[in-house]
Amino acid sequence: MGNLGVHSEVGRLREVMVHRPDLSLRRLTPDNCKSLLFDDVLWVKRARQEHDVFVDALRERAVVVHSFGELLAETMGIGKARDWLLDRRVHAGVVGLDMVDEMRGWLNEMSAGLLATCLVGGIARAELPFEPKGLTGKTLAPQDFVLPPLPNQLFTRDSSCWIYRSVSVNPMYWPARRPEAANVEAVYRFHPHFRDSGVPFVSPQAGTGISLEGGDVMPVGGGVVLVGMGERTTPQAVGDLARSLFAAGEATHVIAALMPRDRSFMHLDTVFTFCDRDLATMYPPVVDRLRTFSIRPGDGDAAVEVREENTPFTKVVAEALGLKSLRIIATGGDRYEAEREQWDDGNNVVAVEPGVVIGYDRNVYTNTLLRRAGIEVITVEGAELSRGRGGGHCMTCPIARDPI
Amino acid sequence: MGNLGVHSEVGRLREVMVHRPDLSLRRLTPDNCKSLLFDDVLWVKRARQEHDVFVDALRERAVVVHSFGELLAETMGIGKARDWLLDRRVHAGVVGLDMVDEMRGWLNEMSAGLLATCLVGGIARAELPFEPKGLTGKTLAPQDFVLPPLPNQLFTRDSSCWIYRSVSVNPMYWPARRPEAANVEAVYRFHPHFRDSGVPFVSPQAGTGISLEGGDVMPVGGGVVLVGMGERTTPQAVGDLARSLFAAGEATHVIAALMPRDRSFMHLDTVFTFCDRDLATMYPPVVDRLRTFSIRPGDGDAAVEVREENTPFTKVVAEALGLKSLRIIATGGDRYEAEREQWDDGNNVVAVEPGVVIGYDRNVYTNTLLRRAGIEVITVEGAELSRGRGGGHCMTCPIARDPI
Amino acid sequence: MGNLGVHSEVGRLREVMVHRPDLSLRRLTPDNCKSLLFDDVLWVKRARQEHDVFVDALRERAVVVHSFGELLAETMGIGKARDWLLDRRVHAGVVGLDMVDEMRGWLNEMSAGLLATCLVGGIARAELPFEPKGLTGKTLAPQDFVLPPLPNQLFTRDSSCWIYRSVSVNPMYWPARRPEAANVEAVYRFHPHFRDSGVPFVSPQAGTGISLEGGDVMPVGGGVVLVGMGERTTPQAVGDLARSLFAAGEATHVIAALMPRDRSFMHLDTVFTFCDRDLATMYPPVVDRLRTFSIRPGDGDAAVEVREENTPFTKVVAEALGLKSLRIIATGGDRYEAEREQWDDGNNVVAVEPGVVIGYDRNVYTNTLLRRAGIEVITVEGAELSRGRGGGHCMTCPIARDPI
Amino acid sequence: MGNLGVHSEVGRLREVMVHRPDLSLRRLTPDNCKSLLFDDVLWVKRARQEHDVFVDALRERAVVVHSFGELLAETMGIGKARDWLLDRRVHAGVVGLDMVDEMRGWLNEMSAGLLATCLVGGIARAELPFEPKGLTGKTLAPQDFVLPPLPNQLFTRDSSCWIYRSVSVNPMYWPARRPEAANVEAVYRFHPHFRDSGVPFVSPQAGTGISLEGGDVMPVGGGVVLVGMGERTTPQAVGDLARSLFAAGEATHVIAALMPRDRSFMHLDTVFTFCDRDLATMYPPVVDRLRTFSIRPGDGDAAVEVREENTPFTKVVAEALGLKSLRIIATGGDRYEAEREQWDDGNNVVAVEPGVVIGYDRNVYTNTLLRRAGIEVITVEGAELSRGRGGGHCMTCPIARDPI
Repeated sequence: MGNLGVHSEVGRLREVMVHRPDLSLRRLTPDNCKSLLFDDVLWVKRARQEHDVFVDALRERAVVVHSFGELLAETMGIGKARDWLLDRRVHAGVVGLDMVDEMRGWLNEMSAGLLATCLVGGIARAELPFEPKGLTGKTLAPQDFVLPPLPNQLFTRDSSCWIYRSVSVNPMYWPARRPEAANVEAVYRFHPHFRDSGVPFVSPQAGTGISLEGGDVMPVGGGVVLVGMGERTTPQAVGDLARSLFAAGEATHVIAALMPRDRSFMHLDTVFTFCDRDLATMYPPVVDRLRTFSIRPGDGDAAVEVREENTPFTKVVAEALGLKSLRIIATGGDRYEAEREQWDDGNNVVAVEPGVVIGYDRNVYTNTLLRRAGIEVITVEGAELSRGRGGGHCMTCPIARDPI
Repeated sequence: MGNLGVHSEVGRLREVMVHRPDLSLRRLTPDNCKSLLFDDVLWVKRARQEHDVFVDALRERAVVVHSFGELLAETMGIGKARDWLLDRRVHAGVVGLDMVDEMRGWLNEMSAGLLATCLVGGIARAELPFEPKGLTGKTLAPQDFVLPPLPNQLFTRDSSCWIYRSVSVNPMYWPARRPEAANVEAVYRFHPHFRDSGVPFVSPQAGTGISLEGGDVMPVGGGVVLVGMGERTTPQAVGDLARSLFAAGEATHVIAALMPRDRSFMHLDTVFTFCDRDLATMYPPVVDRLRTFSIRPGDGDAAVEVREENTPFTKVVAEALGLKSLRIIATGGDRYEAEREQWDDGNNVVAVEPGVVIGYDRNVYTNTLLRRAGIEVITVEGAELSRGRGGGHCMTCPIARDPI
Repeated sequence: MGNLGVHSEVGRLREVMVHRPDLSLRRLTPDNCKSLLFDDVLWVKRARQEHDVFVDALRERAVVVHSFGELLAETMGIGKARDWLLDRRVHAGVVGLDMVDEMRGWLNEMSAGLLATCLVGGIARAELPFEPKGLTGKTLAPQDFVLPPLPNQLFTRDSSCWIYRSVSVNPMYWPARRPEAANVEAVYRFHPHFRDSGVPFVSPQAGTGISLEGGDVMPVGGGVVLVGMGERTTPQAVGDLARSLFAAGEATHVIAALMPRDRSFMHLDTVFTFCDRDLATMYPPVVDRLRTFSIRPGDGDAAVEVREENTPFTKVVAEALGLKSLRIIATGGDRYEAEREQWDDGNNVVAVEPGVVIGYDRNVYTNTLLRRAGIEVITVEGAELSRGRGGGHCMTCPIARDPI
Repeated sequence: MGNLGVHSEVGRLREVMVHRPDLSLRRLTPDNCKSLLFDDVLWVKRARQEHDVFVDALRERAVVVHSFGELLAETMGIGKARDWLLDRRVHAGVVGLDMVDEMRGWLNEMSAGLLATCLVGGIARAELPFEPKGLTGKTLAPQDFVLPPLPNQLFTRDSSCWIYRSVSVNPMYWPARRPEAANVEAVYRFHPHFRDSGVPFVSPQAGTGISLEGGDVMPVGGGVVLVGMGERTTPQAVGDLARSLFAAGEATHVIAALMPRDRSFMHLDTVFTFCDRDLATMYPPVVDRLRTFSIRPGDGDAAVEVREENTPFTKVVAEALGLKSLRIIATGGDRYEAEREQWDDGNNVVAVEPGVVIGYDRNVYTNTLLRRAGIEVITVEGAELSRGRGGGHCMTCPIARDPI
């Protein structure tokens, strides 16, 4: 489709991809949740209801909301797509050579819908319709996963991101999240909504030292892209991305922000998101200590020019956007409350149009400050969703958004 | 009052003490919550609303619900009580000798209500009305606590427990929880509702090696008391308690259950609670591996007789209660769900009368099984409350309950 | 050379590869050692002296000891080898595209010896002879590593292993150890001692779910190979290895031992090593709980037959070796001492010929039991070396050993 | 004896108390060592040999070295002392009321030497000569400790410290170390070498919020005492100590140094020790960030005056000692080495007279710098001892040292 592309962080949101909480979250237990990268187990039924309300809030604002699960199911109805994805997800490295054929045979027979469910929700050994084979099969306990569940597929922001008229399928930091990217790539390559869009991939090539996640990436408009560098995104990957974007003519300026080493924050969007053309909400204890680098096309083919900025991050961003200054709304409340609201994604809002954002109702102090500054804050419940440690920004992958 | 006393786990519940979520929970941040013994920060407003609904459900069943905060405020209106408690909470070891007088002076002037709030909610250095003095005062950062908050006071079950016509103010395992017991002891000693009740203290004496928490203690009726021994409750303390109970004539048989070492569960009531005269809900992976000991009065003054039982815990309990057998409802759902529902306090229900319990709505599998077994399960929301890792049993300290 | 190959675990040891403690260990600090997979920092000078004594003990028994550092230096004197290895170690993913050329240029000019030192010892940003370039270069702190140090190269057992007349360059579990395998593969591919040997690679192909380390692999003779499966070695990788070995005609029976899940032991050789044709030392709390699987060639090309054994591991091994039984010497001392000596590599000895092993002097109880059983135990000091959590078995990669 | 008293950190050392590595260290296993506050298990035989060499180095310098084990054994030969200590170590809280009598009976019959061994080395259930009784006895596993081992008694510096002509028996931070203080107090109260010395106790009174360890305390001469405040020593305790010292007329100025919160260092003497009248060795990344407070006698009885200094710690110390400046030797080597040598107690030396210190041979860079500055560094081996994370300063409790 001709109109795909994300041209800002706050322009009118046209189309977005989300993932409804599902089987993958029901797999989480107090024992396995850490290894599946969740802090706590969620009450999935409630999380699903909260997510439905979130989607409703988006739709009420005329956003076209695509369910990733449905997109994947539709994609799995296409033979070539099914082969492409099963080649990447169900091979000898995962199930052992002795079970590949039987697994593939079984999955091939599956309805597209059920297959899509399994590709995100995982498959436990106890659920196999045949006796597990080979060394891998025989050493699994009944509750072990033959195909791992992907509870973080919920955060569609990370596994891929649209940057103007290009898309990056991301090399995830943790191996446990890499299959999410394969799932979404299958959708982009084969689903009719995407396959003919002509949108080029600018994904950094996976490999040693290369990792990048969408929560760190923000196309803020005017050819400028912000990228955070912390636990999940490496400078090498940002360099790669910048070069691809410059080569594709999709960006002219990448602003890379290095997070302080002594604080661990997952992604840039957990401490900084835009709410309006000239207004952002941020968590000062981290954002105030960012080191900021500007990357611009250099002379020669793949060359880029990198310069460390000596003005603060927010000033660099304002200038790049042609603003006199950026209005900043810090996380609200006293010192205890601000720490709590950052934790509960108070700074992780998603804009549906300039000046209108969706956030969790629990962050009352931050929401109040945003409202006082003239922002319309649509609140949704996040009793369960927030326990996944992601807000509206993390849960959405915009695929069409207007410029500002 | 003559009618105080807890004569069973499931007889009609007459009076109970709970603590409404308050300032202490607003103190929690992602940074300090572990040291204050909380896994996560809560949205306090919502937690308070959920707690109000819980209290309403109790009152609807004609239970007299005492708010611990109010009891403490009333107690702090009594000069002698105020002195007694401040002597134990605000001394040189806590605030440094140089600040004791000024602190005590300030707190003495405070209204009883505000003082009670501070004694649970803590006081940050930034809140002092005077310049902090002495080495302790000068080394505190503004957000540091001069008086620590006690977020676990919410779980009134632990700091004290009524066993038939006696009460134990408990020597808590973690130093961070010990002030909770001082607070509650002040109420028992000085508040008119308790001070003339003639109920004797059977508290194990605090000291090296002695710790016991109420979540491990269950007076099940007929002079029988169950006590769990895990992280929080030591055999030495259980021995002490048994001797005191036998001496006071309040019990004739203590059944002590040793939790498996390779699994960490906080209290017995996180894996086992009674729902009806002959029915309990339990989490089999832990309860099935309990080692069970019977303690009975011995010959001689302080002597007790201890015998390891060679039948399973539930059988020992059934026999002690004169039942042919105990009906057991295990945590519901498949293996993943059962682990999740145990974690979310599915086995931590509180009975308001035989066959009627209050539990969290989120534990749908376990609640369904209980209902199929004929138990009436009144559900309350626990989106926030459950994140404190305690359910209805943990949040209540029964002070009057009928025998069965 | 025609005589390379490892035909048993205890036959006369002819040639072995070790790595002398070096720069890489001097890089370890209390802060970075965990991420570099070391428990503690070592006194490198003393570790080197201890290692020299260990090598001397091997040479006294007529073992030809190759220093890995020297082999790598000689290999780096060969232009093609240098290119091959730098392509794999110094690329855009590691140093960022902007620094690749300058880094490669500098390293290309380096003497072979210094280059080999850097390829194991790493390079800190502060050591670069030029101003660091690009986003990667500019975001590094002076003490950060441009090229990471490889302190575990010390344990030559793991990154590659010889199995009869074949060799496996191993897909290491932790990314931090993968460059060790690249280093050793360069030596095998290009060093004159190896390149013309005609020894085929049977390495499992690296990829999702595939990891295998040499400490888990033991060619015990007669076409039998033992392989442990724990944290570091996956069933998928063992299946791969078995197929390659069967295809190469190098083995006919792989005995795979699954370690208990609730105990974390790094490799099979930390709990079990051979000392004589029919005698092994082992740590019973782990070995007694191994689940044992036999893998044999199946019908069809890549097919293997997998069967879980219902006799204990040691009995399966004895039968496979044609022995009536295996004599077992358990870790010595009382319960405390046995735990300590397992930890200090009491069960991680290396045989130089049947009945003669080298072990650390500190494991006096285990060594005494071995001696009483007729084993000659040559002791070496391991005050520092043992702190790397590996003994004589871990520190040696046999490349030529006689059959038994 | 009239000549007891510690009048400086570097004056001629006359008498010192050390503890030879013994049974308590043989109790350590990889599983239990963390809870017994050791990072690693030691090879006890070697640690003992290293300790003997350390003692020999002290004696060669004419220091009278008392073995704590022998002092305790001699003390246990005195009936009243035995009762005093067993009352504090073997009571119902430790072994359960049902076993107290039998335990006490058995221990009473024991030779003084064996009893002293048990009071430091602990007693496992398997070693009891009778069937364990009571709930405590019956719930212990054979390898569990009825009486806990005290491996940190090795660091005699901490459990008590002499400050001029007074002594503090310290309220240790971790409960696991508190019995060490009871042991040493028995010696001071009853052993003929100490009981008639007339040296007053200035110990802060144990209780909530009060902890202090000798590694933080340094009587540097002229009535000045340095005290570190970090994990182990609280401001409240320092205030207490200061008041007692002022009251006893033993000090006139306490310099209290607050360690930075984001770095965890155990005691002041792990980052700072004196080597000569005007020379100290220190680890700058910590010492440079100390906040320094001066405490002096105030007006009124128990009053003290506390002032935060606005010059650096080392300048405050120099001034208090009447020096123009303090010569400082920082931990040696590059950034990696300095971190390693601090970790290996390079800054934890003990002076035997002005300008002569004993340190571990492993800290070659720091030792070299000290020597260049004119300090005589007597080196001893610490392959094992250093793994306890303490050096010569930690392992000695001076009881007689000359002024400077």
